[in-house]
Amino acid sequence: MRKIPPSTRRSGCPLNASVEMVGDRWSLLIVRDIMLGGASTYAEFLNGHERIATNILADRLRKLMKDGIIRAVPDPTDGRKRLYRLTGRGIDLAPVLTEMVLWAAGHEATGNRALTQQMRDKKKFLTGIRKRWQA
Amino acid sequence: MRKIPPSTRRSGCPLNASVEMVGDRWSLLIVRDIMLGGASTYAEFLNGHERIATNILADRLRKLMKDGIIRAVPDPTDGRKRLYRLTGRGIDLAPVLTEMVLWAAGHEATGNRALTQQMRDKKKFLTGIRKRWQA
Repeated sequence: MRKIPPSTRRSGCPLNASVEMVGDRWSLLIVRDIMLGGASTYAEFLNGHERIATNILADRLRKLMKDGIIRAVPDPTDGRKRLYRLTGRGIDLAPVLTEMVLWAAGHEATGNRALTQQMRDKKKFLTGIRKRWQA
Repeated sequence: MRKIPPSTRRSGCPLNASVEMVGDRWSLLIVRDIMLGGASTYAEFLNGHERIATNILADRLRKLMKDGIIRAVPDPTDGRKRLYRLTGRGIDLAPVLTEMVLWAAGHEATGNRALTQQMRDKKKFLTGIRKRWQA
């Protein structure tokens, strides 16, 4: 696995590196929309349940690309548009998403029980995600 | 496990509930300082490697208490001071922290290799954390 060189982070702690990259209100929701919801266009992200604002979406997409978590490819049906895909690094966020979902679902009455149920078998769920994305 | 009633969140998705509670630059670092660094006082949090600002620290401690992730107890050696402890819900964040650490350590040259190494045996690491905190 290629590691990027150490950057100018507030500390060398790997948890700090994680929160500097995805520790905000929106980045992981965008990753979720791609990974689990099959979203790939700007319009699809805007239509997410949480109603992200356009300026925040644009900023987060830029930051996720800078951090190598997603990449943009031209839409083959319309070259002026871009499709957003997860990189290997982005796919590797699946266990983080899983644990965050299970944590909240364990402590609060949340919706989307089908997803939570699937995630409880972590190994099977993560294998499925990796297979789908590496295809 | 007692679940709090559904609240006014942007969506019913459990991932959204998680990012509304701990999806910011600092909350998980405070949880880390208590869980792994043995920090419990305001001064100890301020001394963390990432140099959190006092006003942000005060705000995040308040929010973490509101969300039932930490609780404050009077310092037995000085009744005017408070000690911050993790609740059961806070301890249950250990798998989230673990996956975030392993994700960053897998993709970036980070420090604190001893911790990362320990976390690679997830089961053992999480059992250790739970045991220590439930004692």
